[in-house]
Amino acid sequence: MDPATERRYVLTLSCPDTTGIVARISAFLAADGGWITEAGYHSDPQTGWFFTRQVVRAASLPYDVAELRRRFAAIADELGGATWTVTDTGVPKRVVLLVSREAHCLHDLLGRVATGELPVRLAAVVGNHDDLGDIVRAHGVPFHHVPFPTGDPAGKAAAFQRVADVVDAGNPDAVVLARFMQILPPELCLRWAGRVLNIHHSFLPSFVGARPYHQAYARGVKLIGATCHYVTPDLDAGPIVEQDVIRVDHGDTAADMVRRGRDIERLVLARGLRWHVEDRVLVHGNKTVVFH
Amino acid sequence: MDPATERRYVLTLSCPDTTGIVARISAFLAADGGWITEAGYHSDPQTGWFFTRQVVRAASLPYDVAELRRRFAAIADELGGATWTVTDTGVPKRVVLLVSREAHCLHDLLGRVATGELPVRLAAVVGNHDDLGDIVRAHGVPFHHVPFPTGDPAGKAAAFQRVADVVDAGNPDAVVLARFMQILPPELCLRWAGRVLNIHHSFLPSFVGARPYHQAYARGVKLIGATCHYVTPDLDAGPIVEQDVIRVDHGDTAADMVRRGRDIERLVLARGLRWHVEDRVLVHGNKTVVFH
Amino acid sequence: MDPATERRYVLTLSCPDTTGIVARISAFLAADGGWITEAGYHSDPQTGWFFTRQVVRAASLPYDVAELRRRFAAIADELGGATWTVTDTGVPKRVVLLVSREAHCLHDLLGRVATGELPVRLAAVVGNHDDLGDIVRAHGVPFHHVPFPTGDPAGKAAAFQRVADVVDAGNPDAVVLARFMQILPPELCLRWAGRVLNIHHSFLPSFVGARPYHQAYARGVKLIGATCHYVTPDLDAGPIVEQDVIRVDHGDTAADMVRRGRDIERLVLARGLRWHVEDRVLVHGNKTVVFH
Amino acid sequence: MDPATERRYVLTLSCPDTTGIVARISAFLAADGGWITEAGYHSDPQTGWFFTRQVVRAASLPYDVAELRRRFAAIADELGGATWTVTDTGVPKRVVLLVSREAHCLHDLLGRVATGELPVRLAAVVGNHDDLGDIVRAHGVPFHHVPFPTGDPAGKAAAFQRVADVVDAGNPDAVVLARFMQILPPELCLRWAGRVLNIHHSFLPSFVGARPYHQAYARGVKLIGATCHYVTPDLDAGPIVEQDVIRVDHGDTAADMVRRGRDIERLVLARGLRWHVEDRVLVHGNKTVVFH
Repeated sequence: MDPATERRYVLTLSCPDTTGIVARISAFLAADGGWITEAGYHSDPQTGWFFTRQVVRAASLPYDVAELRRRFAAIADELGGATWTVTDTGVPKRVVLLVSREAHCLHDLLGRVATGELPVRLAAVVGNHDDLGDIVRAHGVPFHHVPFPTGDPAGKAAAFQRVADVVDAGNPDAVVLARFMQILPPELCLRWAGRVLNIHHSFLPSFVGARPYHQAYARGVKLIGATCHYVTPDLDAGPIVEQDVIRVDHGDTAADMVRRGRDIERLVLARGLRWHVEDRVLVHGNKTVVFH
Repeated sequence: MDPATERRYVLTLSCPDTTGIVARISAFLAADGGWITEAGYHSDPQTGWFFTRQVVRAASLPYDVAELRRRFAAIADELGGATWTVTDTGVPKRVVLLVSREAHCLHDLLGRVATGELPVRLAAVVGNHDDLGDIVRAHGVPFHHVPFPTGDPAGKAAAFQRVADVVDAGNPDAVVLARFMQILPPELCLRWAGRVLNIHHSFLPSFVGARPYHQAYARGVKLIGATCHYVTPDLDAGPIVEQDVIRVDHGDTAADMVRRGRDIERLVLARGLRWHVEDRVLVHGNKTVVFH
Repeated sequence: MDPATERRYVLTLSCPDTTGIVARISAFLAADGGWITEAGYHSDPQTGWFFTRQVVRAASLPYDVAELRRRFAAIADELGGATWTVTDTGVPKRVVLLVSREAHCLHDLLGRVATGELPVRLAAVVGNHDDLGDIVRAHGVPFHHVPFPTGDPAGKAAAFQRVADVVDAGNPDAVVLARFMQILPPELCLRWAGRVLNIHHSFLPSFVGARPYHQAYARGVKLIGATCHYVTPDLDAGPIVEQDVIRVDHGDTAADMVRRGRDIERLVLARGLRWHVEDRVLVHGNKTVVFH
Repeated sequence: MDPATERRYVLTLSCPDTTGIVARISAFLAADGGWITEAGYHSDPQTGWFFTRQVVRAASLPYDVAELRRRFAAIADELGGATWTVTDTGVPKRVVLLVSREAHCLHDLLGRVATGELPVRLAAVVGNHDDLGDIVRAHGVPFHHVPFPTGDPAGKAAAFQRVADVVDAGNPDAVVLARFMQILPPELCLRWAGRVLNIHHSFLPSFVGARPYHQAYARGVKLIGATCHYVTPDLDAGPIVEQDVIRVDHGDTAADMVRRGRDIERLVLARGLRWHVEDRVLVHGNKTVVFH
């Protein structure tokens, strides 16, 4: 069997650090012959917190994922204050995309899903304009057009209610703001906490808010960037998952930066989403541990 | 008018270097009020060759592109041994893509054309399998399926003849081997010399030929790369237009490298093609001058 | 003669943009046989300003640098509102370094000067501690120890007066704050305007002020950076010359970032200083044009 | 106590992979209260080999490093075919540098050792020219001048014997060819196997052998690189520890590449050496596992 596509279970756990956690978990897995193919550990000396992610071949264990969850829950209980997950790579993660008119991240993600490079099922795409409906449907993905009125708070709230209905109906593991251009209301940030990824077109914390490339142009920076982060009620201030930059120079206008920045937005969002759906990202406070 | 989309003329010229070429060209353009928006110059001390690329606002000149060509031809004649081009950004460049089953570069280019990010017209896509026909047609681009028989030289020659017919009918400014997986016969390399771009999935000159990621894995390199180059009869040895790399480590299998390398293949090919259709690439011998 | 070390004249000019400037300058140089080895041009569509840098082989002109300056001044006068310089690579640029206890940038610059890689003469190093005196003197460079009292404004002002005396005695083309850790008084910023380079250990405009790596650690960024900029009375807000970043992850403590950031501080400062002394940097408003 | 400088023990082990190794090692360390601050694991699916590196606070164990070695040896014996090391960060690693006339890597390493950034003791520097003796001695490090005759095999063999005597007297954990420019004889490669690091000024496997920048210039590559690798009798073909690249363009002559490449040589060698002396590099066949 191809090791890349073989069914695996992914365990993540974070808890207060103490001696012997690794021994406890690895003994548990070894006891029943669990074959670990990837293992990441991190001890944060500042917060005194411990994080791990383990990947086990499903076929190496004599029980199913439900039984693994039961047994791992008992371990986590012993550790005290632990947060943990157990997922099954045989069950594709579900993703809902929210888009507006800027299509580059959408095209990129559709392509990655079509080629099998990004192992997710696109449950739905919601757009506040209908420009991108055709290409979404051509990829066999349902598209929902939810217009957002301007200068009409009640209408906007109703629109967000419709978005929420579509999202919740899709039961997604990730909601992706793929250049959505609308600020998610605090209640949705909280309802979907830890599941909403945004791509911001600057190297945060520089250039929060609107028109970051124009801000970058005005400041005369020599690199521009993009940031994939979890959305929280605090604008552009949630836990950062991934960032990257590209070089610009004096010859680049703000419009050039907009165009050239798309390359880095695409990449940073695709990486951040991949890591999220592979359960590589553990959030602690306003920071992330990302096990590569 | 938006300066980014305003009609411009692009002049390129290469010739033996001597004193006064810049003065000659810039005086010529200034004489009739030509407003230069971009100008690149390069003198190669080793070969004694001079290269330039100039971009002029079309509206700043009192004559049309045909007249500009006539007048610039006269300048070039005076310089002796010059190669030159004058193109008009109002006339979109035409591109034909050759693909096989690997779809990531195709999806990426289709997305860039759809968003207007890559200013070209896709005249046709030719595939030696028909897997990618639907998505190509969904983008409104004609798809031609030309099967390539294995172990049948005559059948292969006939298939290449059909490819050549489609390409030539499209009258393209660029033919792009977007992971085409077939080696172009020497006569087509020569017929389309300077117009065929390939994306090779290694940092050339390392790992020429088949399965470069597997070669890279076996050697234990810490970065993998991709190279966009002009195709010549000498396999993977033509003039390099663009290269880039990404970091890998001991945890990456050859299959991981194949997957991760796609990000850099997409980017390097998209950059190389953009520069080619913007007339930024001047070939001299087996090397390129790329005016950014 | 080695073309890399052959004597050359470097001309820079910035002025309001209009048609024919390139023609005017290149005709001027061509008229007397000036052999241009490098030429950079930039038109800024937003400000309507034009910038150029030209490098000419000294031996190709029939007159000396003083005469070149006289003639070029006449051209600049015609252009109206121009700022210009003419320098001679046969006269090494003079540099004064201001340091504190952090030695990594100092070691790096001393090494680059010792190998001839950075073509400058170190006129003096001033330190507000004497820790680094021995290594500076081992490189044959005068070291001046100027202690800075804490909590004593008058003492501090006196110390800055002594620093200013050393700097002015060195008549430098560049004053480099190589992790100097003291904020230059506004009057010195103004007196040496356009000649003082600082290395700030963050990717500005993020993390202005003190302890930027600790700020970066607290925010959870995935890349840390360094910025070389001209010093103005507005703290860490002067025109940016160069920036770069390196990747960090959750395993990096603030102390790791301090250590790892040194690699990028060294590089960014060395590049910024090289470009400054090669007259590649033209300042306009609060931004720079850097001709590579 | 500063966690960065607190005494720690570093354990590395590689052996045939099987279920339960992590459990075995972590249980062993936990049994006596060992506090793990860093842990890296790698299973190579292709070779079926397992690799780990563990860092333990010395103060957390009730016995000394000698006892830790005895006990860990017993574990390793049980695992069968294991290679392992236990080192003590309280005992600085010893390094001998071999240099010629190219000084940039030497200056860089001297600076890093002087600032405490690179935690090693420089036991000696050997130069086949005496140009660099003064700066080495200014750093308080013994310098040995061993001239290498040209065209005299017996004289060269004698010179290498003198080099070997100095190296062996220094009892180094690492021998660094810091642009030494002489090819180490096979018997020394073998005698010091796994301890000799070279910096090659290309992105291997491209441009093996002499004048790699000139080879790169001739091929027209768009990035140049450097490679830090273990030296084996097969020239420039040993296990790669680290590589990196920088962008060049058509304006860079071979001499520019030589100059600009120094930045990447310095960095790549410094990183490779750091990782080696921190016991982060495990060699298996002709490849390395590097635990970051």
